[in-house]
Amino acid sequence: VAGEFELIEMFRERLARAGAADGEGVAVGSGDDAAVLAGAGASAVSVDAVVDGVHFRRDTFPPAAIGAKALAAALSDLAAMGARPGPAFVQLGLPAEVSDEELAALADGVGAAVAAAGAGVAGGDLVASPVLFLAVTVIGWADEPDALVTRAGARPGDVLAVTGELGGAAAGLALLERPDIAAELDAERADALRARQLEPTPRLAVGRALAAEGASAMIDVSDGLVADARHLAEASGVGVTLDASCVPIQAGVAEVAVALERDDVELAITGGEDYELLVTLPEAAFTAARAAVKGLGTELTRIGIVTAGEGVQLLGVSAPPAAEGFDQSAARAPGAPT
Amino acid sequence: VAGEFELIEMFRERLARAGAADGEGVAVGSGDDAAVLAGAGASAVSVDAVVDGVHFRRDTFPPAAIGAKALAAALSDLAAMGARPGPAFVQLGLPAEVSDEELAALADGVGAAVAAAGAGVAGGDLVASPVLFLAVTVIGWADEPDALVTRAGARPGDVLAVTGELGGAAAGLALLERPDIAAELDAERADALRARQLEPTPRLAVGRALAAEGASAMIDVSDGLVADARHLAEASGVGVTLDASCVPIQAGVAEVAVALERDDVELAITGGEDYELLVTLPEAAFTAARAAVKGLGTELTRIGIVTAGEGVQLLGVSAPPAAEGFDQSAARAPGAPT
Repeated sequence: VAGEFELIEMFRERLARAGAADGEGVAVGSGDDAAVLAGAGASAVSVDAVVDGVHFRRDTFPPAAIGAKALAAALSDLAAMGARPGPAFVQLGLPAEVSDEELAALADGVGAAVAAAGAGVAGGDLVASPVLFLAVTVIGWADEPDALVTRAGARPGDVLAVTGELGGAAAGLALLERPDIAAELDAERADALRARQLEPTPRLAVGRALAAEGASAMIDVSDGLVADARHLAEASGVGVTLDASCVPIQAGVAEVAVALERDDVELAITGGEDYELLVTLPEAAFTAARAAVKGLGTELTRIGIVTAGEGVQLLGVSAPPAAEGFDQSAARAPGAPT
Repeated sequence: VAGEFELIEMFRERLARAGAADGEGVAVGSGDDAAVLAGAGASAVSVDAVVDGVHFRRDTFPPAAIGAKALAAALSDLAAMGARPGPAFVQLGLPAEVSDEELAALADGVGAAVAAAGAGVAGGDLVASPVLFLAVTVIGWADEPDALVTRAGARPGDVLAVTGELGGAAAGLALLERPDIAAELDAERADALRARQLEPTPRLAVGRALAAEGASAMIDVSDGLVADARHLAEASGVGVTLDASCVPIQAGVAEVAVALERDDVELAITGGEDYELLVTLPEAAFTAARAAVKGLGTELTRIGIVTAGEGVQLLGVSAPPAAEGFDQSAARAPGAPT
């Protein structure tokens, strides 16, 4: 029994070092039957799980990056709601062969990601498992439910826009798996691309700014721009016309695409995991929203328009992409993927 | 891509059939970036993960029982806070070899457990994994933070009491793994013992009643009575004296203990996973609390007293038990367990 409780204690202490568990709305933190939350008119809850060999590989991912990746995916969903990040709950499945040092680094990665988001770890669970996994729950706050932006509010005529630059995470993953490609790139660019994959930054402040500026619908770019645009269109009961030639692409993606014998635009619109925000706004709100996002150090780029139709109409590509997005979590894919 | 989204859709539909996702406080359910919760003065959040080969074995556990087990552990923590159960979030790691029928049965088990608790599934995630796991997050409600009962409020002189009967889950597990023992038992008793392991029932209504009757501290019996009494004593900064001869033991446990060449009292106080509630109450509150619990069809049994000391003083056993509790989730146990 000592082994379990000591490990959990070590895991918790590491997490607590970076992220305070007594943040907004946390009345009782880790260690009781349940964490107790109080306050806030509304909360947003997002869960995400990552599994060794599926969402990352322990041989190419440093332990700290594994923790950061799990948190980023869940926190990015809160960003896409325009929520203030609150307590996080981390469940770790831990194989016996993971060393104490690896575990500590992984916990530090979780703690750093949580602290960078301004959140805190309020609880969790550490269980034995033949395969390493992290299952994360994050709770975000808003003053009232209507202050949160769903995927379902896009209206015909709204501007379709995206924050930041795309393609970096997919190119970064390629560099991690193919050091021979990295060797041909400018070192600084290569580092920036790898960081997009290993240290993803959820757009939490930008998401809140877009919500405040009147975003009608919002989703994070996790599956890939085209796939996520389709999710948004379906949830809103509208169509979107997306001009791929307007999509901002991160520096270095083009070189990686050449090495992979792929098209850089196709990589950028299908790559996924960039954790930028895809947003729709009334035309009248766009200029102020762009200025607000710029004030936070990020660009907001117009890439299309919402229509009365359905699905995604893709302009600016010679042929439709072979796949809409990177299927991050496909459990099984019977038949051909679309 | 189709494969993933179709599977998730099937999983969600199965869950939704039994447990409504639009229960108390759920403004936006499954399918958006995050679930949106509103209302309630306070919430309690509990997470629990179960892993194939660690917390259950697919060869002895029917798929429906796997889902029920994961939910029961998390919901039982809410019971021990005296919270009203609210939305549940279910993350499933799914190996390729699990058939659609098994997946459906597992989802039905989750749905049934959630519905039986009066809760609902508000979101989740389905990811590929080499090993089957379920990571569950449940949220419970209370009118205010002080209405929730932590482990930390026990005071010297308080009565120590336990709900229901113990030992059943451990005996049930033995019957599942040793059908030869089951053959010697009365069939009805054997069924009841196995049900304690396969279909655990969190004491949600009883927990709320105990909170309303002035419980000073509460914890669910998941690790084992002695281990959980120690957790409660540590959190409260008190000692407890526990008379093992007063502990109510489920019918049939004695016979299973004989077959296992173990002591039935020792099995009952260390077995764990019964998901009964261990509670402390001021002496003046005990009689009314017992009546309230009886009104819900369950017994509340006095088994000890809270003292000004520390740790657990165990009476009524000839020798201290070899282990305090079943170490459900021990990741690794370097050195000898206590």
